[in-house]
Amino acid sequence: MKKNWYVGVDIGGTTIKMAFVTAKGEIVTKWEIPTNKIDEGKHITSDIAQAIEEKCKELGEEKDILVSIGLGAPGFINMENGFIYQAVNIGWVDFPLKEQLEEKTGLTVTVDNDANIAALGEMWTGAGDGAKNLLCVTLGTGVGGGIITNGQILHGVNGMAGEIGHYTSVPEGGAACNCGKTGCLETIASATGIARLAVEKLADYPESVLKATYDQRATISSKDVFEAAEKGDKLGNKVIEEVSFHLGLALANLAIALNPEKIVLGGGVSKAGSLLLGPLEEQFKRFALARVAEGCEFKIATLGNDAGVIGGAWLAKQV
Amino acid sequence: MKKNWYVGVDIGGTTIKMAFVTAKGEIVTKWEIPTNKIDEGKHITSDIAQAIEEKCKELGEEKDILVSIGLGAPGFINMENGFIYQAVNIGWVDFPLKEQLEEKTGLTVTVDNDANIAALGEMWTGAGDGAKNLLCVTLGTGVGGGIITNGQILHGVNGMAGEIGHYTSVPEGGAACNCGKTGCLETIASATGIARLAVEKLADYPESVLKATYDQRATISSKDVFEAAEKGDKLGNKVIEEVSFHLGLALANLAIALNPEKIVLGGGVSKAGSLLLGPLEEQFKRFALARVAEGCEFKIATLGNDAGVIGGAWLAKQV
Repeated sequence: MKKNWYVGVDIGGTTIKMAFVTAKGEIVTKWEIPTNKIDEGKHITSDIAQAIEEKCKELGEEKDILVSIGLGAPGFINMENGFIYQAVNIGWVDFPLKEQLEEKTGLTVTVDNDANIAALGEMWTGAGDGAKNLLCVTLGTGVGGGIITNGQILHGVNGMAGEIGHYTSVPEGGAACNCGKTGCLETIASATGIARLAVEKLADYPESVLKATYDQRATISSKDVFEAAEKGDKLGNKVIEEVSFHLGLALANLAIALNPEKIVLGGGVSKAGSLLLGPLEEQFKRFALARVAEGCEFKIATLGNDAGVIGGAWLAKQV
Repeated sequence: MKKNWYVGVDIGGTTIKMAFVTAKGEIVTKWEIPTNKIDEGKHITSDIAQAIEEKCKELGEEKDILVSIGLGAPGFINMENGFIYQAVNIGWVDFPLKEQLEEKTGLTVTVDNDANIAALGEMWTGAGDGAKNLLCVTLGTGVGGGIITNGQILHGVNGMAGEIGHYTSVPEGGAACNCGKTGCLETIASATGIARLAVEKLADYPESVLKATYDQRATISSKDVFEAAEKGDKLGNKVIEEVSFHLGLALANLAIALNPEKIVLGGGVSKAGSLLLGPLEEQFKRFALARVAEGCEFKIATLGNDAGVIGGAWLAKQV
């Protein structure tokens, strides 16, 4: 039987992750190429096309085993025509990504944003486990989100749906966010936000182990905070309590609207596991309607860095 | 050409609203029958079937001009099989609504909840004006919601999606809500909530015209509050400010997730018009991402009591 593989592509600011994926969502092979940002990113489509051809040769396969390409990119995207209005980390401005990549590969290309394809990947073969109503939250340097309703990624009217890092958690007097607002969830529940909360509270907890860390390194990481909390440090636990309160409240309020089957947490902060998940679920149950909380399960993302290429392949498969 | 009409049915605790609707969403005729709650509501399906037959006779039409029935009901519903788990206001417990009504009418029946069919009605021929991503909020005795994503009503995993009256607006020390939680949006932005806020603040505003109203009637309505505010009353304006803050924040946070094209406000409180809409939009813009706010328009619902039967007909038309 002829092989039918889908190409998943996940474009980041430093590397482009690529994979050939079967119709069942299994990765046949995956690899990375550097993101070539010179000339405002105009060589990226040629690089991807070339990488696909070379990989086929390397595997001894004809290119016609590839069905289509699904691709995730950062920035403001028109998902219907695969046009990138702007992607600051790459250099693209008004870039016809879908059109160019289709021309260079001869394959149909579907484009979505990077947070969304990661959510689709987790839905397909990861922690989402096929759930048709899914809320994916990435707790990394920032806070990203992808929402799946009725089995489809939610884009909204101008592609902004799922930007839950900018849920306003502190309406008055919150910390400044990169988006220009203040008090966004991202200023609290991201790795950066967690570190900031710990530093701000240092003066109130002179006996904390984090004080020594800060004196030594002039910085605290979110990992330091969780490690301290695990050893019973009061400051560490206070920060986790505050993060859980705000994240639990925000997720409960979104769940009351969306009634998701699963909430999948990914990104570096999610590696804290039960240390975060325990207090978070407690706050979630406190603020969600009972029937909403009963219907909803928290999961830690399982696909890691592969979520994007698998979600890209899922997208490719829908064409 | 043969007429093809859809039957829209909107079951309430007191009356059942019914209409024959064309494929374009125009009401041919509409009428009401009382909700017969005796014997735990078991006669309701016969009543509806009989009312449909009589109306056809009255119009001199054969019953075969009717294509299908779309129906909205209150309570906890399994939308897939039209089974009502519980509808307190009607008396139904474990009632096979779809199955019974299909048997009695010979027509295909689709069931959804009452807030959702009102949202579908506004989407089809009302203030939603065909928008595929729509957030409908009913500000009445309580606060209800219906969410449309990608042109489909959002049900979520167990039919609870869109229950935005139970968004937690006051996480600590909020007023008790009927749902068992405290601080729900419904305790602030419903007609009941608005009246409560005014009464609570009376002591701080002895010069308010609402003081006289309260002394006379021992009660204040939300209409009184808006009328007072319109005349420049400080208490009236203070209450509107508080309601706008909480409702604007909640809608902004939901819009950041959903990125809707329109937010449609219905229910008695929405009749306050620009008196509420002005400060509400101001708070919404303060808390929403700029691109989300730019893509989103506020509208007052236009279909009034007809929204349900028109939405029911829309639902019937999808079969």
